[in-house]
Amino acid sequence: MSVPGRRRRFWGWGWEDAGPSPAQQEAIGRAVAARLGLDAVHMTPPPRLEEIALPPPRIAAPARLAPICSAAPYDRAAHTYGKSFRDVVRAYRRDFRHPPDVVAFPRDEVDVAAVLEWATGAHVAVVPYGGGSSVVGGVEPPRDERFAGVVSLDLGRLDRVLEVDTASRAARIQAGALGPALEEQLRPHGLTLRHFPQSFEFSTLGGWIATRSGGHYATLYTHIDDFVEALRVVTPTGVMASRRLPGSGAGPSPERLFLGSEGILGVIVEAWMRLTARPTFRAAASVTFSDFAAGAAAVRAIAQAGLYPANCRLLDPTEAATAGAGDGQAAVLLLAFESADHPLDPWMARALECAADHGGRFAPEAGRTRTSSEGEREGAAGAWRRAFLDAPYLRDALVGMGLVTETFETAVTWDRFPAFHAAVMTATTDAVHRVCGRGQVTVRFTHAYPDGPAPYYTVLAAGRPGSQLEQWAEIKAAASEAILAAGGTITHHHAVGRDHRPWYDRERPAPFAAALAAAKAALDPAGILNPGVLIDA
Amino acid sequence: MSVPGRRRRFWGWGWEDAGPSPAQQEAIGRAVAARLGLDAVHMTPPPRLEEIALPPPRIAAPARLAPICSAAPYDRAAHTYGKSFRDVVRAYRRDFRHPPDVVAFPRDEVDVAAVLEWATGAHVAVVPYGGGSSVVGGVEPPRDERFAGVVSLDLGRLDRVLEVDTASRAARIQAGALGPALEEQLRPHGLTLRHFPQSFEFSTLGGWIATRSGGHYATLYTHIDDFVEALRVVTPTGVMASRRLPGSGAGPSPERLFLGSEGILGVIVEAWMRLTARPTFRAAASVTFSDFAAGAAAVRAIAQAGLYPANCRLLDPTEAATAGAGDGQAAVLLLAFESADHPLDPWMARALECAADHGGRFAPEAGRTRTSSEGEREGAAGAWRRAFLDAPYLRDALVGMGLVTETFETAVTWDRFPAFHAAVMTATTDAVHRVCGRGQVTVRFTHAYPDGPAPYYTVLAAGRPGSQLEQWAEIKAAASEAILAAGGTITHHHAVGRDHRPWYDRERPAPFAAALAAAKAALDPAGILNPGVLIDA
Repeated sequence: MSVPGRRRRFWGWGWEDAGPSPAQQEAIGRAVAARLGLDAVHMTPPPRLEEIALPPPRIAAPARLAPICSAAPYDRAAHTYGKSFRDVVRAYRRDFRHPPDVVAFPRDEVDVAAVLEWATGAHVAVVPYGGGSSVVGGVEPPRDERFAGVVSLDLGRLDRVLEVDTASRAARIQAGALGPALEEQLRPHGLTLRHFPQSFEFSTLGGWIATRSGGHYATLYTHIDDFVEALRVVTPTGVMASRRLPGSGAGPSPERLFLGSEGILGVIVEAWMRLTARPTFRAAASVTFSDFAAGAAAVRAIAQAGLYPANCRLLDPTEAATAGAGDGQAAVLLLAFESADHPLDPWMARALECAADHGGRFAPEAGRTRTSSEGEREGAAGAWRRAFLDAPYLRDALVGMGLVTETFETAVTWDRFPAFHAAVMTATTDAVHRVCGRGQVTVRFTHAYPDGPAPYYTVLAAGRPGSQLEQWAEIKAAASEAILAAGGTITHHHAVGRDHRPWYDRERPAPFAAALAAAKAALDPAGILNPGVLIDA
Repeated sequence: MSVPGRRRRFWGWGWEDAGPSPAQQEAIGRAVAARLGLDAVHMTPPPRLEEIALPPPRIAAPARLAPICSAAPYDRAAHTYGKSFRDVVRAYRRDFRHPPDVVAFPRDEVDVAAVLEWATGAHVAVVPYGGGSSVVGGVEPPRDERFAGVVSLDLGRLDRVLEVDTASRAARIQAGALGPALEEQLRPHGLTLRHFPQSFEFSTLGGWIATRSGGHYATLYTHIDDFVEALRVVTPTGVMASRRLPGSGAGPSPERLFLGSEGILGVIVEAWMRLTARPTFRAAASVTFSDFAAGAAAVRAIAQAGLYPANCRLLDPTEAATAGAGDGQAAVLLLAFESADHPLDPWMARALECAADHGGRFAPEAGRTRTSSEGEREGAAGAWRRAFLDAPYLRDALVGMGLVTETFETAVTWDRFPAFHAAVMTATTDAVHRVCGRGQVTVRFTHAYPDGPAPYYTVLAAGRPGSQLEQWAEIKAAASEAILAAGGTITHHHAVGRDHRPWYDRERPAPFAAALAAAKAALDPAGILNPGVLIDA
């Protein structure tokens, strides 16, 4: 079932033929070793399919589903993991002991329903699979002896924009469409969803909706949630199709129950999505602050001013330097407005005033509205974007060098932020030093709300051969405990999956857990859908 | 349990000593008669408590709850109905055959839990009651023989702002706080919730949340939903308390399940609400259009421009004339921006350009930003606001004159709007003529989204003595059928209650109904909470 031409890595991020070359990886290794004060890093070669020993499938699809099912080693290996640090470490270890038994590639909604029907009758667990970019164990086959086997349900063939409504600026889009395919089909209409998570190239609309993905906009419409106009979901007990509406107050929102349901309630097959005209005006500015706290105060002022910048990302000095946006001494705020309707000078001017009020410094020409053509935009913005989108390749290379890496993200109210940030940094840095010896923890704000920021932390630390997973787990636990204790959420946009369960279970109100479990039992009485993710049931 | 001093009408809207005087009512009657071409209207005197025959209570609160319970005729009568046309007609008929047996006035969350515990054990239905402003039968005691009796649970004593976080601009507020009390407590902090439904004076925070109330803002933050940061809900099986977070992607939103749950899942006792600084800049303009369709095109352009006006209400020629904003020939768009942060001229200038593109006409000075002091604002805006808030008194007077009145509201995507509007107007006008002979149907947009408007229709028609309810029901059914058939929602912000059930049941996806019923069974196993509202269970 492999696609002709370019093939994706079965063991990590992206295309087989992309990512840093061996020579580039050596250079990266030297740079990282220097930054962490290590003598050298040792590179493990990535796994080859012929090195992988997969257990034989425990089940086979019935004859009527055979045309859409595969038990080929490539397909099973490629659907064994998501793309978290933990996943890639296991892949480098050639550990593929728990692959799905079957991978199904439905061509349409009828196929999806047929797979669910078979699975319900045969006690087979079903793991809905979009782009496979989960970093929280969200697409990993459960190890649960109640089930005869596991089928990974890959929505990749449902990749079309089915209908475009230019008057309402909305489109009906199949859930398996990857970011680039979706945008390509919208482009002729002058429209865009503008949802650009870092996983953009290898994540799908359905995955974004199932995980409440965080996207392009740093303020206002931060999650995919607000762009969902209507949903179509195949559940084991029938199709949930909500009505296209710009707004409604008719009972609790049906869409909102499925937003963030991570495949446990049904399989999202299509959605009407709210779009926007492709921006033609753009104003961007880079503002430096003496420290992160001063930048945070400016972000708060901007977020509470009702200006709604598209970008409002604050990098700490280390992250700023790494991104080529600072000297390592100053925090940097990347500020941008965009519009298809109007020049943005008044918006930017006021945002820069807010920044200046808190000690922000910027160039005299900063923030001027540009009406650059598509080609020009692709020049400068394109380079940054390429680096942003290539970061996961780099991460995989670092894993291969035996390092410990992790990103974790959260949100917290402004009143709590200073103490929260201190507690999380201390807990995480202490854990890094304790379990890794050398390493660093950095922070940025990816999104900002009137009532609080969404801080995003990055860990890079020295690993011990054979102990990377244990080291990672100890750091992850320390960070997660601190987040929960200091009033944050265990995830702002990476989802819960299996990895965040221990903390999600404590964050989530118990009566809501009971309601969610009851809803699942009503829609999925056999409990076949992504068991172990979000809840036990 | 009546409050000392001013007392609310038990039979209709507002204070006993407010509303139009008999002389004013006569003038109103003459004006309406002229408008509808009637000879005269006959006024029925409103009911007096001593005219009302209430059935004896079927149950009594246990001794431990006696201090917070009342079976006084005033309390029982005042909690028999909401404030819909249908409610007021029945009140004028002196028909109070189905009052609650007991009215409970909990002082705190512990009292709420105690009432639910008693009711669960005693098979007593519980109707959560905020301000009693429901226009959809949402606070009416069920007539359901499975229950020994009905208690109306009046949250009015839980009326305090408990905590204010000025850094995050948020406050913890008890659910029973009426609009004015809530704003009064926030004012010293320079903050405001700015949620001003027409029911503002006699509706509560908890009621707004339970019904997904539509508020002040015509764009962007149209419903109360987006302002809810965290919720505290007492269910029969425990307290649901969600965490204060500016944003989260940790599973489906717990708050969103309770937003719009209309009292069937639990009793909302408090919420952390997102606030804003009290606006100091305001820009307003009135734009006329040759017809409603041209105005609608302008509203679409403005809604899709990313400008987010606070007001963007389009009145058809008749409504504009009634509001004193037109000559009855032109549609009028009321446009306003407001901010506590910045002058609004660029925003307004671009919105007026959009309006002009579609033939809108406005005065040369229109839209200038004013930085008027609080006192000045109360002058002009205060007068309009008083008229807006007094409208329900007027409606009750019209009911007493034997007229048939109804307002219904919806939302629909822009592509469908022209055909939708034609179908709804035709169906409703035909029904008015068929069942009432004379009458009128008018429209405005109360809220506007990038993907569609929220049209709000008003019916005023001649009634036949003794047949008002049947006439209303036929018109309501015709309008509702048209809304559903043409792709709208049965309610954008009036809620479902009992009155909208037949259409809500068809609008709501069946699997979502199953999930909601299962969630209710998990939280309220005895099914005592507002039975018959939203779902059968």
